[in-house]
Amino acid sequence: MFESLHGFCDGIDPPSQAEYEAHVARVQSRLRRLGLAAVVVEPGASMTYLSGVRWRLSERPFLLVVLAAGDPVWVCPSFERATARERIGAQAEIASWYEHQDPYEQAARVIGAGSGRVAMDPTARLFVFAGLASALGADRIAAIDVVGDCRANKSDAELARLRRANCATKAAIRAAAAMARPAMNQQEFAAKIAAAQGAAGLSDVWVLCLFGPNAAFPHGTGQERQLRSGDFILVDTGGSLHGYRSDITRTWPFGRVSSEARDVWEIVRRAQQAAMAKIAPGVPCSEPEAAARTVVEQAGYGPGYRYFTHRLGHGIGLQVHERPYLVRGNPRILQPGMTMSNEPGIYIPGQLGVRIEDIVAVTADGNEVFGPGVDSIDRPLGTGHS
Amino acid sequence: MFESLHGFCDGIDPPSQAEYEAHVARVQSRLRRLGLAAVVVEPGASMTYLSGVRWRLSERPFLLVVLAAGDPVWVCPSFERATARERIGAQAEIASWYEHQDPYEQAARVIGAGSGRVAMDPTARLFVFAGLASALGADRIAAIDVVGDCRANKSDAELARLRRANCATKAAIRAAAAMARPAMNQQEFAAKIAAAQGAAGLSDVWVLCLFGPNAAFPHGTGQERQLRSGDFILVDTGGSLHGYRSDITRTWPFGRVSSEARDVWEIVRRAQQAAMAKIAPGVPCSEPEAAARTVVEQAGYGPGYRYFTHRLGHGIGLQVHERPYLVRGNPRILQPGMTMSNEPGIYIPGQLGVRIEDIVAVTADGNEVFGPGVDSIDRPLGTGHS
Repeated sequence: MFESLHGFCDGIDPPSQAEYEAHVARVQSRLRRLGLAAVVVEPGASMTYLSGVRWRLSERPFLLVVLAAGDPVWVCPSFERATARERIGAQAEIASWYEHQDPYEQAARVIGAGSGRVAMDPTARLFVFAGLASALGADRIAAIDVVGDCRANKSDAELARLRRANCATKAAIRAAAAMARPAMNQQEFAAKIAAAQGAAGLSDVWVLCLFGPNAAFPHGTGQERQLRSGDFILVDTGGSLHGYRSDITRTWPFGRVSSEARDVWEIVRRAQQAAMAKIAPGVPCSEPEAAARTVVEQAGYGPGYRYFTHRLGHGIGLQVHERPYLVRGNPRILQPGMTMSNEPGIYIPGQLGVRIEDIVAVTADGNEVFGPGVDSIDRPLGTGHS
Repeated sequence: MFESLHGFCDGIDPPSQAEYEAHVARVQSRLRRLGLAAVVVEPGASMTYLSGVRWRLSERPFLLVVLAAGDPVWVCPSFERATARERIGAQAEIASWYEHQDPYEQAARVIGAGSGRVAMDPTARLFVFAGLASALGADRIAAIDVVGDCRANKSDAELARLRRANCATKAAIRAAAAMARPAMNQQEFAAKIAAAQGAAGLSDVWVLCLFGPNAAFPHGTGQERQLRSGDFILVDTGGSLHGYRSDITRTWPFGRVSSEARDVWEIVRRAQQAAMAKIAPGVPCSEPEAAARTVVEQAGYGPGYRYFTHRLGHGIGLQVHERPYLVRGNPRILQPGMTMSNEPGIYIPGQLGVRIEDIVAVTADGNEVFGPGVDSIDRPLGTGHS
């Protein structure tokens, strides 16, 4: 199945060792600028960004300590040292701790006494922070998003992965859409969408598939529904290419939908377009959101969050949701290399939900949408190849 | 496949509403004893314990606030309110926040000004803690494990789920073991172990399957291996029954293993037995660990962590690893209703690894092992029905 998608992601390489080293250098430069001695990172997207290493979170801390100067040091349970060595490489420095020892004392030794203030990645777990605060002194450590700030500005190699991943998801939706049948349930159709993305070369695929009035729940509902003519199909889905994420939403009519439904679809499309026109370097994150919301409100689907119930968008990279957020009141300034979703929606409980989502990158002089956008409810999945 | 396992978990009910209410009352009583105004919980095992509600962690906080008196209150993104209502029930109080608002101000309002100190569940993420500390005042909130302490002592209903889940995993291992074939790879055999547990009625099944020298990595290795005569098969596996976890390790010979391998197996078995004899109310967590380690050391596989590289065991319940931990230096006193793994191991790099793990509950006058234990390398999977 989906043979036409095979090889879609070929030719895109995973991050090289040099790329990880560049990320570490970037974080170190930021640490020095902020006058910080180190940043401590738990397993997750920030660790992956700095090293490619993935590790299951457990009650035993497994930490990456990036010092303002010098090589990063790992803090690892002693009995897992051989497993860690396989993933970290032969060169990296590992400080390990035995089961009855305090891992945070070990981390504090790595950081060094009196070396200055330390940042903890804010996605870390509280008990790890509390342990480090106790070992270092509470005034020496704070939640500071050093790595997340670096991750927000993508390199060309990262942009290439994000572009291909999102194009793959769009191609997969187009390929699977032809398989929608009356009385199919949401789960069955979601399985097709997932299979198509797998065929295209994405991993870690997730799918939210909602029919008709169920789509009025932006993040889904426990209610099932069999597809019937006159329903909108809403598919919000994505996967991962070498860790870099896609996130695309398409809403399209199955059979003939009401004229109000067509109007709503068109308003959402125009809202997305109005936001897209604002996404450019130097613009605060709040502006594209305001542009989209104004379109929706002026079309009678306001005020405020009444029907367009959520923010406009979120950054995307190694996490599906990351900085920057396109939300009212966010003064952050868009910069070239930032990537984000543009996803207005209108939700009418008991009736329907429409959302259109594309991923867009800020460029030197404007923006680039990854893959074909949609411009008409008569071509609701977008057209052309990418 | 595995028809004989069908229905194995029948007759065990999921937690009732009354059970969740009893858990909340227990936490509230503990809050009052500690002079705390509230505990704040993120999605995860503690939230499940108190409500049965599961929620995907995202950058948007979704919180349960258990006040020292009165009904718990949920803090939820406004646009997900309808989805949340489906899971939380019609009665529960929900305080919601719009996308541009500060969710922590909302939580602080729920808790109330001047109502006293607040505990944050230590498994929460640091950025949520930092947000609450900023809204409440940093001196009003701290990482305190109120819910985890309550969770450590299981009710009869919880014990019934844990007992059945662990018996099911043992029955599944016995059923799947007959399918081991020469040249099979680890992943293929793991799939059989997983399928058997699914047939027995467990969900969220995970399997660590290691052949021969690969088992010298206690938590696995990226190296593959085809099964050959003379290998030990080590399977460490479990699943979930209504959220309650199993975690069983068996190590058995495929064909004829060396006499040193047989000796190692026998030492591990005796170590487990020595620890089992110590698990009883009133005993500190460090004692069973010491008993097991003494057996291993006296048999020549010491000192310390040299070959028996990890602690003896961990508590188990809604999480596979939770309090209490059977580790050197842990003074915590065992109490009736606590459940934990007893899992000594010996690992010889390049040669073999042996681990034997059973789940045991502390009773009023000793302990109960869930399902048949092992007593001889000639019956290495245990015998009898459970």
